[in-house]
Amino acid sequence: MRGDDDCETRPFYLMTELTLPIRIVLIETSHPGNIGAVARAMKNMGLRELHLVNPREFPHSEAIARASGADDLLDSAVLHTSMQDAIADCGLVIGTSARQRHIPFVPIEPRECAQLVVNKARDGNPVALVFGTERTGLTNSELALCGHLVTIPTSDVYSSLNVAMAVQIIAYEVRLAAREAMPVHLREDPLASQADMERFYEHLQAVLAGTNFRDHTSSGHLMSRVRRLFNRALVDQNEMRILRGILTAVQENMK
Amino acid sequence: MRGDDDCETRPFYLMTELTLPIRIVLIETSHPGNIGAVARAMKNMGLRELHLVNPREFPHSEAIARASGADDLLDSAVLHTSMQDAIADCGLVIGTSARQRHIPFVPIEPRECAQLVVNKARDGNPVALVFGTERTGLTNSELALCGHLVTIPTSDVYSSLNVAMAVQIIAYEVRLAAREAMPVHLREDPLASQADMERFYEHLQAVLAGTNFRDHTSSGHLMSRVRRLFNRALVDQNEMRILRGILTAVQENMK
Repeated sequence: MRGDDDCETRPFYLMTELTLPIRIVLIETSHPGNIGAVARAMKNMGLRELHLVNPREFPHSEAIARASGADDLLDSAVLHTSMQDAIADCGLVIGTSARQRHIPFVPIEPRECAQLVVNKARDGNPVALVFGTERTGLTNSELALCGHLVTIPTSDVYSSLNVAMAVQIIAYEVRLAAREAMPVHLREDPLASQADMERFYEHLQAVLAGTNFRDHTSSGHLMSRVRRLFNRALVDQNEMRILRGILTAVQENMK
Repeated sequence: MRGDDDCETRPFYLMTELTLPIRIVLIETSHPGNIGAVARAMKNMGLRELHLVNPREFPHSEAIARASGADDLLDSAVLHTSMQDAIADCGLVIGTSARQRHIPFVPIEPRECAQLVVNKARDGNPVALVFGTERTGLTNSELALCGHLVTIPTSDVYSSLNVAMAVQIIAYEVRLAAREAMPVHLREDPLASQADMERFYEHLQAVLAGTNFRDHTSSGHLMSRVRRLFNRALVDQNEMRILRGILTAVQENMK
């Protein structure tokens, strides 16, 4: 999957994991386990800067347990006594909110948010993504400190995202946005050529001609159905050898 | 954010939350808390069908606690004793895997996966998204039952997504895909079920057993290569009749 193009993709990873100045700010988090789960969600997506405003309990063993190997982010977390302090050096501050709140903001969605975050961070602007308390989210005075509000689209009848789940979705979108314009190439087996495919269809027809197989399709276009099936599958060269091998073996064993 | 267009959006929600036949299948989940967190992640995104294959402990108080109001999905969860049983009636089966595994699959990403899932589900085909155990993911024999493999892009240096986080990201992408404008859809033939596919593979093996066909693949896993090819093709019921007809005709004409 990676192989030869390792050298090309590494600079990308270096950039997204170490250089882009994007921080997650958690306000007055009640459950230390959630802080650990947020660290894990962030590290999976290559984000490293965790800022905590007045966490109820921190550090805490439950945070470490839920971080599951992302405890280096807990060790380097920056503690603040106010949201103002946590965002003081940021050029862009984005608040997060559940869908139903009556607030004087037109929220953006995570995908659009991620574009904005990555664009600004690439220009060297520190960016903060701010998450409120588990029970009540951001207060109106905290929202007033935000330039944008992001809302994750959720069900009409149940909207109750855990804070770490919300961080996970937004961090995932940030990762995808950071990766864009730098396509990563997946390595595949080379596909069978169209000439190979034609030889396979001829071979199959020869096998069928040796049987009493009748075309029962309504339109009588059996081979066109078979072609559609195999063309859709995008048969690779190795698979083609297997298919031809099967046909040859069957032929040798026919009456 | 909603207001006036409530009436227009409601049919969409009805459809995505009640009608699209998309199930989450969890294999041998160790921690009951994770099952609850998965239910919560699903319900937030409007998915409701939870299938459990040999969970270590279920039902369990921790599952209910972590479900946080999504315990109706736990109540309606379907229990199975094998993955085959959990996917028997499905037309499309998608496995999930961490990025680093050395598996003979070209994985798709969640966004592409969601398009595929929603398209097939809209045509009425039950779709399964399958998640392996917390420690080791899906086994190779479980992966062999999947038509596609989805991998969430994660950090190059830390790839350790909790199963509920993985469900959250994929369910989020499914929700976005389901929400997109619904273009007039050409109706396709319904897909062959996984039970039909199993009968086809058995039939093919019976035919091969009657020949001197030898497995020349480097790994000796000929049938797994064949399965991958046909699973990827998403064979419809009409095509399945043709494939079975070919095998029967060949069988009748063998020495």
